[in-house]
Amino acid sequence: MSETITMAHGSGGAKTSELIERIFKKYLGNPLFTADDAAVLPSSTNRLAVSTDGFIVSPPDFPGGNIGKLSICGTVNDLACLGAVPKYLTCAFVIEEGLPFDDLERYVAAMAITAAEAGVHIVAGDTKVAGRGQVDKLFITTTGIGEIRDGLCLSGAAAQPGDKIIVSGDIGRHGCAILLARDTFGIEADITSDCAPLNRTVAAVLAQTENIHVIRDATRGGVGTVLYEIAAQSGTGMHLTAQDIPVRPAVKGVCGMLGLEPLYLACEGRLVFVVPAEAAEQAVAVLHTQPYSVDAAIIGEVTDGRSGTVTVTTEIGTETILPPPSGELLPRIC
Amino acid sequence: MSETITMAHGSGGAKTSELIERIFKKYLGNPLFTADDAAVLPSSTNRLAVSTDGFIVSPPDFPGGNIGKLSICGTVNDLACLGAVPKYLTCAFVIEEGLPFDDLERYVAAMAITAAEAGVHIVAGDTKVAGRGQVDKLFITTTGIGEIRDGLCLSGAAAQPGDKIIVSGDIGRHGCAILLARDTFGIEADITSDCAPLNRTVAAVLAQTENIHVIRDATRGGVGTVLYEIAAQSGTGMHLTAQDIPVRPAVKGVCGMLGLEPLYLACEGRLVFVVPAEAAEQAVAVLHTQPYSVDAAIIGEVTDGRSGTVTVTTEIGTETILPPPSGELLPRIC
Repeated sequence: MSETITMAHGSGGAKTSELIERIFKKYLGNPLFTADDAAVLPSSTNRLAVSTDGFIVSPPDFPGGNIGKLSICGTVNDLACLGAVPKYLTCAFVIEEGLPFDDLERYVAAMAITAAEAGVHIVAGDTKVAGRGQVDKLFITTTGIGEIRDGLCLSGAAAQPGDKIIVSGDIGRHGCAILLARDTFGIEADITSDCAPLNRTVAAVLAQTENIHVIRDATRGGVGTVLYEIAAQSGTGMHLTAQDIPVRPAVKGVCGMLGLEPLYLACEGRLVFVVPAEAAEQAVAVLHTQPYSVDAAIIGEVTDGRSGTVTVTTEIGTETILPPPSGELLPRIC
Repeated sequence: MSETITMAHGSGGAKTSELIERIFKKYLGNPLFTADDAAVLPSSTNRLAVSTDGFIVSPPDFPGGNIGKLSICGTVNDLACLGAVPKYLTCAFVIEEGLPFDDLERYVAAMAITAAEAGVHIVAGDTKVAGRGQVDKLFITTTGIGEIRDGLCLSGAAAQPGDKIIVSGDIGRHGCAILLARDTFGIEADITSDCAPLNRTVAAVLAQTENIHVIRDATRGGVGTVLYEIAAQSGTGMHLTAQDIPVRPAVKGVCGMLGLEPLYLACEGRLVFVVPAEAAEQAVAVLHTQPYSVDAAIIGEVTDGRSGTVTVTTEIGTETILPPPSGELLPRIC
């Protein structure tokens, strides 16, 4: 029988120390990592960005990733969207009694690989164990600290009429992958999550031009929700051209069968940029050189009409309003 | 019927925004607070301390506090024990569908009061909602960032033979309060948790003398576990005098009935100091001027014999070894 997590692993005593040594230090250890209550970080003269996110995705394993990988990507990407260079992460685990040790090890190994790719150090953590049925398998909360470069000021309020809207790749894959992984619909399709750390993607664009108004990652609620938020924050309209929006055929197929709008499906590796028109082509060209944005495309522009609204030119050429986000989206997507 | 949390409150859409406005901004709002993905902090030239903790205490309401108050105290105290001045906190909520709105509001209000008392700003947060039975009521993960004063170097490894061991007040009340709140044993006793933010207590002691070797908060595992850890880290022995250890009669009574050792009951507002003998009386005198440490006492000293062990002179004058922590402590104490 495979070994499982017991209540004693969350006691703060000897079994907790054993878990830290066997799993957390093994994979996440680095010179700043602490098994003590708090880590000490070097001083920095930059402004800091800080972001926290709880990850409760169900199922915790899905094509293209798992909850461990996702817990690093989500926080790294939130920092990157503020123009910050992610430096340090903390992680807090709540584990259900009985979770196989092998599962935990797989998630933590994925965290280590993703953190290394993003160039962030995991510096502190916490482990709690709840009884069977008191938490569903495993929740991970990560908090990230990044350094913001001077002079940079990205904000949803900065979008201006005439700006171009760019997405960094095809949309909706994370939402679709989770939906199919739940096996509720009996649909089989070859769709993997787009889950990826995007800080190097953002850095590449900002290295070329700082003339960027907005960067946002399209997670819960997808690209559509992000655009509605930017429209509200900046008092502008957002106009999209449907045929320019990259969506993979398999995602289109699933959306067609289930009556879903790809613009509202979650992504975990996609950015929305709002960029002055004169800088847009160059930003897309830079994105095409980066591994997670080879399919980046200009999908529309910011308008001064229809303030607060997202409109779309459909593939058959008609004009329509994208229905505002309903709030009734897939639960536990991240 | 009272209003409850729904899945839509965790969707990242309009209902999430409403929750942020109605509860989180109302209580936690401050100039640095962000409803966006990440907060921006001013730069500082100090070294930073960072600590994270997940709180899953059951029940979430208990005499002397609730999960909201505890989630601030726990992280503030971890930072304080490193000699850091806590400055910023993030909080991530995982809420069970159906939690009454009033409960959430009560917990968040307690967070606000405790954060204000500690002088920390809550700068960023996250809200997820899991379905009924997928999380037990509410989990809160807080992450804290503090600034460490130059020159200070507190560590469990710094304990030296001859040092005095101080506890900042009577022990075991949090563990006892949670035990009784679960109502498993049908015991009634007037015991409230000692849950409190201790950063000002630590600051008062350090303002008087920086000649302190170790500061630790005795949470999961209690004072006994902390002393075993310090003994292991420093390669010393710890010798206690039982009659000097402050324990309230009600706690002694419950421990007697249930066969528990107060040294292994959790505290959430108690510090262990290891201090050079010549500084000990003064440290206790300072502690007696602070609201959460009026019962501070010297309870023993560090020895060079019995390395790695905690020994006790019992109330009847015999010498005994405190049994090492078993790891089989009360689950979900914090």
